Amino acid sequence: MAPIERISVGMLGLGTVGAEVFELLHDKRTLARSPVPARVTRIAVANPEKARTLPASGVVVTGNVWDVVEAPDVDIIVEVMGGVEPARRCLVRALQLGKAVVTANKQVMSQAASEIFAAAEASGVPVRFEGSVGGGIPLVKPLQESLAAASITSITGILNGTTNYILTRMERDGAALSEALDEAQARGFAEANPTEDLDGSDAAAKLAILTSVAFHVPVSIDDVFREGIGAITFQDIAHARELGFAVKLLAVSKIRDGMVEARVHPALIPLDHPLARVPDEFNAVLVEGDGIGQVVFSGRGAGGPPTAVSVVGDILDVARELAAGNRSVPHFYPAVDNSLSMRPMEDVVLPYYFGLLVVDRPGVFARVAAAFGEEQVSIASIVQKSRGQTADVVLLTHDTPERLVRKVIARLKAMDVVAQVRAAIRVEGTL
Amino acid sequence: MAPIERISVGMLGLGTVGAEVFELLHDKRTLARSPVPARVTRIAVANPEKARTLPASGVVVTGNVWDVVEAPDVDIIVEVMGGVEPARRCLVRALQLGKAVVTANKQVMSQAASEIFAAAEASGVPVRFEGSVGGGIPLVKPLQESLAAASITSITGILNGTTNYILTRMERDGAALSEALDEAQARGFAEANPTEDLDGSDAAAKLAILTSVAFHVPVSIDDVFREGIGAITFQDIAHARELGFAVKLLAVSKIRDGMVEARVHPALIPLDHPLARVPDEFNAVLVEGDGIGQVVFSGRGAGGPPTAVSVVGDILDVARELAAGNRSVPHFYPAVDNSLSMRPMEDVVLPYYFGLLVVDRPGVFARVAAAFGEEQVSIASIVQKSRGQTADVVLLTHDTPERLVRKVIARLKAMDVVAQVRAAIRVEGTL
Repeated sequence: MAPIERISVGMLGLGTVGAEVFELLHDKRTLARSPVPARVTRIAVANPEKARTLPASGVVVTGNVWDVVEAPDVDIIVEVMGGVEPARRCLVRALQLGKAVVTANKQVMSQAASEIFAAAEASGVPVRFEGSVGGGIPLVKPLQESLAAASITSITGILNGTTNYILTRMERDGAALSEALDEAQARGFAEANPTEDLDGSDAAAKLAILTSVAFHVPVSIDDVFREGIGAITFQDIAHARELGFAVKLLAVSKIRDGMVEARVHPALIPLDHPLARVPDEFNAVLVEGDGIGQVVFSGRGAGGPPTAVSVVGDILDVARELAAGNRSVPHFYPAVDNSLSMRPMEDVVLPYYFGLLVVDRPGVFARVAAAFGEEQVSIASIVQKSRGQTADVVLLTHDTPERLVRKVIARLKAMDVVAQVRAAIRVEGTL
Repeated sequence: MAPIERISVGMLGLGTVGAEVFELLHDKRTLARSPVPARVTRIAVANPEKARTLPASGVVVTGNVWDVVEAPDVDIIVEVMGGVEPARRCLVRALQLGKAVVTANKQVMSQAASEIFAAAEASGVPVRFEGSVGGGIPLVKPLQESLAAASITSITGILNGTTNYILTRMERDGAALSEALDEAQARGFAEANPTEDLDGSDAAAKLAILTSVAFHVPVSIDDVFREGIGAITFQDIAHARELGFAVKLLAVSKIRDGMVEARVHPALIPLDHPLARVPDEFNAVLVEGDGIGQVVFSGRGAGGPPTAVSVVGDILDVARELAAGNRSVPHFYPAVDNSLSMRPMEDVVLPYYFGLLVVDRPGVFARVAAAFGEEQVSIASIVQKSRGQTADVVLLTHDTPERLVRKVIARLKAMDVVAQVRAAIRVEGTL
């Protein structure tokens, strides 16, 4: 490509993140760091009639994304509208037209990355997506580039701020889940519809992106097992704490025996685990691999200003390449590892925590223990706490394939002496 | 530059890091991630007669660095020998000859970066130095690129593993400094001559590099104030703990009122500070700035394997650029901020912790307090613990310019009732 002397940015979306991107990109400190002048010339918004105060004049505002995507004078498309469609079609088309792409869209990057990168490679233009995971925490680029020579074996993340805030409030103050959720919404970091936070979908999209980048294998959100925090109670958080564990919604991907497992679920982690004390709405990612040991990245994982820092960092990056007239160097899958396949969830092996409510009478303890033994599940510890008519049984297993755990749960639920299988929570980060 | 089809790497040094770099670069997983074949063709070592088992044949081993630097067939110089000379001359010459440079040398990058980058820019070739700070923790590139749009206001780091290990052992087990140092040496992460670890020089070199990158201003190691951990005692660590603080050797740089302060010294930090629980030989860096809030990077900050991951990551990066025939895009000081100047240490303002041994008799407490008042130093809290003939006085000040603290120390030392000014330690990370 020929070097260019000024860069015209077309934006898709002007919501919370978009407005911050617009402002930060035109900040004089940012402009001083761009090799050539870069400014937004076109923006597509949902409702162009709505009056907007834009901090720069001469910007064309349109209700039609294609007015931006197809505009011959736009060099970089910055997509901050979210959702799979029409984002996917816009990005693919922009790349086909030879425009560079910067996106903060976790949905499209966790569902259509392969298609987007094929289009980018065909045109020789860059795609950057640091803002799609972890807000202002540098993750994508460090995994793609700085740690390119590390043989990464696992990624363990707290990737959803809302659920981490809820679990923190439950643990610290004994708050109920619904109460903590209301608070998160009042403080502005839970969505009005928090379903995707609570059920693990938000974290699963981000994990799919990080897993793809770290393991050089295309992983989509559909490859990620998901279980939300809906069943977590203060009681189990308190029991876990007594046993030396914190309860977190973890996003985990690992390579074991040539297979990749990728899963989002609540987990007990030891209190001295690097993620055990990540508080409130903070995010953190632990990367483990040969040579590097444990590397942890943490910070504010969401919100307009942090995400805008990542998006504008990507824009500056692309601007440097365009200004130099460089051919794009694809970074997404520097070498797709075709030898890896996904491990089905029922074959994943982990220790498990069980919280049971049982009838408190002689022999029950032995019958519960026998249910585990009959399914070949080995118990590491079991504690029974009498509560009058009933008793709480708190139990930890040794490493167990998920498939057997499911059988044990079915067996326990069928037992007349078991009033409730309150919790069956995976244990992560033990040796 | 024209694209090249195979990359020849010349290494300077084959010590702990160099041997790991050699091995990792020729690992088949690394080769799979390089866009074109990259291999080491020449190595300069201190003692070429010493028998070496190199995992690749056809490598020219020489005792003369210039045989590598001047070799026309070498595309990338990888410098892992350390020290300022002859590294500085080698790197500058290599860049003049149009060779790309990857270095893990904190000394040369904290003392001659401006000269090296001027040579790189003149030739249009890249210089990468991720391995010079923080071992396998990605720091340089995230600061240069991912966080390029953040207005960074401070960097706070634990950048020396040996001293952090010593302080951890002292705090946890009441070990003496000398005992903990012996252990660190036995475990292989303190140098045989640990002076540069203990006196803060090692951390100061790394801080100079990070400060330059984060604030876009050339900061050399000579601009960094240094105070080591030699005067830290278990007694003060225990007192600090009671007051809610941990004691760490911190490397801090900040922009305040248009001036940069850069300093390495022991500091009390609140127990809930993101760096308070960084254990043993681990390193961590807290980056604060507008928009991003607090971002923390942590991991193993030294050692052959982690540092080799950073060095080989840089080599792969450079290889991608060379393979694409790209013009180098300089990243070191994307825009030097000429408006910033260094704040002299005596003008730095911080709260201070004092540990004093005084004669235990009536009126002494008041005389000590008066000494602070006479120098206009405001006391936040003061506790006196009788020990028979003498008493321990533990005192925290409010924010105080260093200049006044020095006057107070001189005044206290001259008082007949003060047996010892055991400790005067800065306090960091309070509001």
